[in-house]
Amino acid sequence: MRESELSAGETPTSSEFALIERIIMRLGESAARDILVPPGDDSAVWVPGGGAVVATIDSMTEGTHWRPHLSSMTDVGWRAVATSVSDLAAMGATPEVLLVAAVLGPAVTLNDMDAFIDGMAEACRAHNVHVAGGDIVRGRATAFSITALGSARLDRAQRAIVMRRDAAHSGDAVAVSGTPGAAGAGFRALERHLTGLPADEVIAALLRPHARIDLGFNAVNLGVPCAIDISDGLVQDVRHIAERSAVGIEIDLDALPINQSAIALFGLDTARDLALAAGDDYELILTGRQQIIEALEGVTIIGRVLDQHPGEVVVRQRDGAPYPLPTGWDQLRAWPLAQH
Amino acid sequence: MRESELSAGETPTSSEFALIERIIMRLGESAARDILVPPGDDSAVWVPGGGAVVATIDSMTEGTHWRPHLSSMTDVGWRAVATSVSDLAAMGATPEVLLVAAVLGPAVTLNDMDAFIDGMAEACRAHNVHVAGGDIVRGRATAFSITALGSARLDRAQRAIVMRRDAAHSGDAVAVSGTPGAAGAGFRALERHLTGLPADEVIAALLRPHARIDLGFNAVNLGVPCAIDISDGLVQDVRHIAERSAVGIEIDLDALPINQSAIALFGLDTARDLALAAGDDYELILTGRQQIIEALEGVTIIGRVLDQHPGEVVVRQRDGAPYPLPTGWDQLRAWPLAQH
Repeated sequence: MRESELSAGETPTSSEFALIERIIMRLGESAARDILVPPGDDSAVWVPGGGAVVATIDSMTEGTHWRPHLSSMTDVGWRAVATSVSDLAAMGATPEVLLVAAVLGPAVTLNDMDAFIDGMAEACRAHNVHVAGGDIVRGRATAFSITALGSARLDRAQRAIVMRRDAAHSGDAVAVSGTPGAAGAGFRALERHLTGLPADEVIAALLRPHARIDLGFNAVNLGVPCAIDISDGLVQDVRHIAERSAVGIEIDLDALPINQSAIALFGLDTARDLALAAGDDYELILTGRQQIIEALEGVTIIGRVLDQHPGEVVVRQRDGAPYPLPTGWDQLRAWPLAQH
Repeated sequence: MRESELSAGETPTSSEFALIERIIMRLGESAARDILVPPGDDSAVWVPGGGAVVATIDSMTEGTHWRPHLSSMTDVGWRAVATSVSDLAAMGATPEVLLVAAVLGPAVTLNDMDAFIDGMAEACRAHNVHVAGGDIVRGRATAFSITALGSARLDRAQRAIVMRRDAAHSGDAVAVSGTPGAAGAGFRALERHLTGLPADEVIAALLRPHARIDLGFNAVNLGVPCAIDISDGLVQDVRHIAERSAVGIEIDLDALPINQSAIALFGLDTARDLALAAGDDYELILTGRQQIIEALEGVTIIGRVLDQHPGEVVVRQRDGAPYPLPTGWDQLRAWPLAQH
C-alpha cells in the first residue's frame, strides 16, 4: 500500500512499511539518512564519534507518562526525545542516534502518529540527534521506548570519560543548572487550566524540556566527575548521588535558584517546594571541586558533599535547622506510578 | 524498600530500584557487570568490539506477540532476546549488548517478571550477549522493547562490513539455513495441544528460536553481501530482498529443506506451505555467488537471483509451473496484527 492510500484521521491499518516510509518522510532531516541502512533493513549501522558508546533506553506509556487531555502528541514526541537524550547529557556524552519503538494502542490515529513524529523531529533538531531506526507494533495500549546512543571519549587506559552518580567526594561543591521547579509549576498550571504568561512559560518547561547537552559536555571536559539529571525531583536525585557515592549532601535552602514564574503563580513557599521535590526539569545536578564548578556557566552552587551521613541529604535553612522536605509532589513521580 | 520485602506472586509494587537490583541478581552472569555503569546510573557505557555499531530495536506486546495461554513468560523472555539478536545475525554483526525496556501491565506479578528474566538470561548465555541496562515502567498493557547492540568491522573506506537486503545481484544463488516451517508447525501443534515428539521439537523451534549468529558471521567474512532473517515467512522475506535489491528471485519448490517433524505431524503439503509462508523461524536467507554460498555450512541452495521481474518472487514446481503461494498463514504475521 502506498502512502497516498493512507488518509489522516484513520487508524493506521496500512502496512508497517508504508507507515515507516511515511515516518521517514515526515522526520525529514531528523532521519539519519547517512547512517540509516535503507528502511526495512534489520538494523542501523553507525560509527560513533568517540571510542565509547553511551546507551540508554526509556519508555513512556499513555496514562502513566502523559495524559491525553493535558498534552498533545507533539509534546509527547518532543518529551520522549528530550528526556532520553538527557540521560546522555547527564553523563557528559554526546547524543547522536535514536532508535524508536512504538506500541500503538487500538485508538491511535494517523494524526496522532504524525503529531508524535513532528514533536520528535523538532526535538531531534533542537538536540542535534537523528532517528536511525525503529519498530512499530500493535498492542493493547500505546507506549514508546526510545534508545538514545551517544559517544564519549576514552582516556589513555581506554576507559570512557563520563560523569557518574557514584563519583561525588567529600568537600565537593554541589551545583544545579537553571531553575528547578519550573516543570512542577507547569504541571500545576496545566491541571488548573492556567493560560498566558507566566503560566505558559512553566508549562513549556514541563512539556518541552531541553536536555543540557552542552553543559554536560563542558562539565565532563572540565573534569567534573559526577552528575545526574533531575527527573525524580532535586532532593531525590541528589539522594541518588549520595547513595551511590556513599556520601552525605547538604543543600542550602536559600541558595536554591527558584523559578520566578513559579513564584509569581504559586508564591515562594510552593515554588521552593516544587524546586526541591517536583522533578521533570531535566536540569543537571553536578558535584566537583569548587573551582571547577565555578568555571561552569549557567549553574548555581547550592550545597556541598560531606563525609558524614552517607546516603543522606539534608536541606538547611538559614539558621542551620533542617528544612522539612515536602511530601506529596513525588507521588506523581514515584514508581510504581498510578494507573490513570 | 529492600528486596526481602518483595515476595513472589505479588504484583511488583515495590520501588523501581529494588526491582532493578532483583533483576540484576537474577540475570547473574548475563548482566553486563564489566560495562554496566552501576545500577541506577543513567546510561550504559560500552566500547564496541568492531569500529561500527550495529543497532536494532524490537517490541513485543502481550496478545499480539505472545499469548499467555500458549507460552510461558520464560519462553517470552528467551524469544525477546533471540529475535532481537537475530536482526544483528542477519547483517553478520556480532551481538554484544542488550537494553531492555519493560512496560508492566496491571496484572504482571513478580513471578512473571522472574520467569521473563530467567528466559532472557538463558537466551543471553546461549547467544553470548549481556544485558547492560534497561527501564521499567507501569502501563495499561505489558510490552517489552529490546535494543540489541553489536559490532561490525570497518573496511578501508571506514564503511561497516555488513550484509544488507539491497545487495542481491542477478546470478547469485539463494540459500536458507535449517528447515523453515518448523516454527509454523510449532504454532499449529501448540494450538492443537499436541505433546510429545515430534510436536515438542517444532514447539521448541517456535518458542526457543536460536539466532544464527555464527552463520551470519561466517557469511559476512566469506563475502556474502546479502541476507535477511526469516520472521515474516520465507517467501515474504525473500520478497523483501527482491524489492530492496530490485531483482527477481526464483525458488525451486523441490529444493526447499522441509522440516521432518512438520511433515510427520501435518503431512508434506502442509509442511511445505508452512516452510514457504509461516515465518518465525529466524533462519537466515542469504544470496551471493554460488561458490561462496557453497562454502557455507548448514545452508541449502533453494533458488537464484534474476535480472527480470524486479521485486517479484516466484516458486517453481518441478515442471517449471509457478507454485500457488499459500495464503492464510501470514495473517498471523502481517501488520497490523490482530488484537487478541
